[in-house]
Amino acid sequence: MASNVQGFAYVKDRYLPLEDATIPVIDWGYRRSDVTYDVVTVWKGAFFQLDAHLARFRRSMKSLRLKPRESDDEIRTCLIECVRRSQLRDAYVAVDCLRGTPAAEKLSHPANADNYIIAFARPYVSIMSEDVQKRGTHLIVASAQRIASESVDPTVKNFHWGDLTQGAFEALDAGADGCVLLDRDKNVTEGPGYNVFSVVAGKVVTPNRGALEGITRMSVIELCADERIQCEVRPLPVSEFLQSDEIFITSSAGGIMPVSRINKTILCNDRPGPVSSHLRQRYWERREQGWHATPVDYDSVESS
Amino acid sequence: MASNVQGFAYVKDRYLPLEDATIPVIDWGYRRSDVTYDVVTVWKGAFFQLDAHLARFRRSMKSLRLKPRESDDEIRTCLIECVRRSQLRDAYVAVDCLRGTPAAEKLSHPANADNYIIAFARPYVSIMSEDVQKRGTHLIVASAQRIASESVDPTVKNFHWGDLTQGAFEALDAGADGCVLLDRDKNVTEGPGYNVFSVVAGKVVTPNRGALEGITRMSVIELCADERIQCEVRPLPVSEFLQSDEIFITSSAGGIMPVSRINKTILCNDRPGPVSSHLRQRYWERREQGWHATPVDYDSVESS
Repeated sequence: MASNVQGFAYVKDRYLPLEDATIPVIDWGYRRSDVTYDVVTVWKGAFFQLDAHLARFRRSMKSLRLKPRESDDEIRTCLIECVRRSQLRDAYVAVDCLRGTPAAEKLSHPANADNYIIAFARPYVSIMSEDVQKRGTHLIVASAQRIASESVDPTVKNFHWGDLTQGAFEALDAGADGCVLLDRDKNVTEGPGYNVFSVVAGKVVTPNRGALEGITRMSVIELCADERIQCEVRPLPVSEFLQSDEIFITSSAGGIMPVSRINKTILCNDRPGPVSSHLRQRYWERREQGWHATPVDYDSVESS
Repeated sequence: MASNVQGFAYVKDRYLPLEDATIPVIDWGYRRSDVTYDVVTVWKGAFFQLDAHLARFRRSMKSLRLKPRESDDEIRTCLIECVRRSQLRDAYVAVDCLRGTPAAEKLSHPANADNYIIAFARPYVSIMSEDVQKRGTHLIVASAQRIASESVDPTVKNFHWGDLTQGAFEALDAGADGCVLLDRDKNVTEGPGYNVFSVVAGKVVTPNRGALEGITRMSVIELCADERIQCEVRPLPVSEFLQSDEIFITSSAGGIMPVSRINKTILCNDRPGPVSSHLRQRYWERREQGWHATPVDYDSVESS
């Protein structure tokens, strides 16, 4: 493909090349960030945890009172069709539900807008590059405080990234690859696009609040059970977090990614730790074996 | 104009009808709400407080490390040109600076994106309709908590409206026209698109933190000084706010708008109060007299 932007999109009943997929500048999905979204991945021709993503997306839409015309089955078809048309074997697949644009030439209530779905498939991306994943990610604890649950529910996937973007700039200034944000009680929450796990004495811990309930996070909890590794889901104070033996982060965009530095502290001789590395290896092995997989039928592409 | 969307826009060096102005679905201005904006109004052919808006917009961009190629003078020209081309005598004029789309087909750092300006002029709108302004706005105190300053700086105008949108739905459910959000210490902050003022015993109070430093708010403070009305800028606890003699809200989109009900409490016999009404009248009188005005030269429209 000659264009800079590879991929296929679905916007209001139409399939089109991703580079042509746009939204109006007056759409409240943009102008008020009044939108929810989800991201599913395709690896070696199969979706991972597609049903879990679709269920979470519907919960998010209900929470924001967003009512697109598509059913869950129709949204599933949109996502599969975007992947089919893109012919991507490894894909990053996003689906958004936007509030839409108020009908009249005046400011009106969001309850009156026509909500709609956008979806697209583009080449698979990782939050951290392969090189960084191999040497271990370098993180800092950012001074930006994660937006409180009393203001914006973090379990409803959203684009309110102002705090996370500030954290990303703090990481850049510190020469790190990424950041972790705390809540106002100094508990670990999440980073820009990823959940956070701590490992102490072979035991795994991840925060129970203030963060997205990530599908990869959920899969890690399942993986720990299968591998007989104890996993606790509870508040994680930063004081405890900074004493971790190992740290890793999880995202649909990258899977399980080990951390080798937190602030000035070097973990595991500056390399990915044994528990993190084991879980990462098992995660990709099991995905290849068809764990929670929905294979894509690439041959039945309809003409656009 | 036959179209539903009236107005003119500027997007990356091009002027075009507002209905054709779009942004890519993969732009971080949308996907991470990594954007700041400002709104100026034109009334009877003249901008109000144009310099103050341009200065605030530049401060917001600097705070988010957004560097568009346009200077302040060029942005001023964009706004004037959008109004000229639209030929609107009363206009709502928005200007956004978006982070942009990462150059490569991978997730990269926001520092690497090409930031850019979008501007548009559309017909003037008020937050509250003329009818509501006449009878007095009905407000509720929402349960949604305003996003804390430690997470997202409210003085940098932003689209993180999740809490405000939730408040708007709470207002709808309660049969009210709008809402006011509190911070976690139960101080009044702001509503969706407006600042809030309380009047007690002829004295005006507005919050000093947790809210946008609105240009109309600033103009009201100036107006109070000119009219010899005492105006305090300080924390405003909700307990004090609910005992107000009068309440009014301010926005570029509507000016000064009196409130006649707060929660179940009826203010001033269910009508706009005397101080609010006086300030509202003086505000529009002075705008007509050229207060902080920059007249638009409509005759010099260039061909597009």
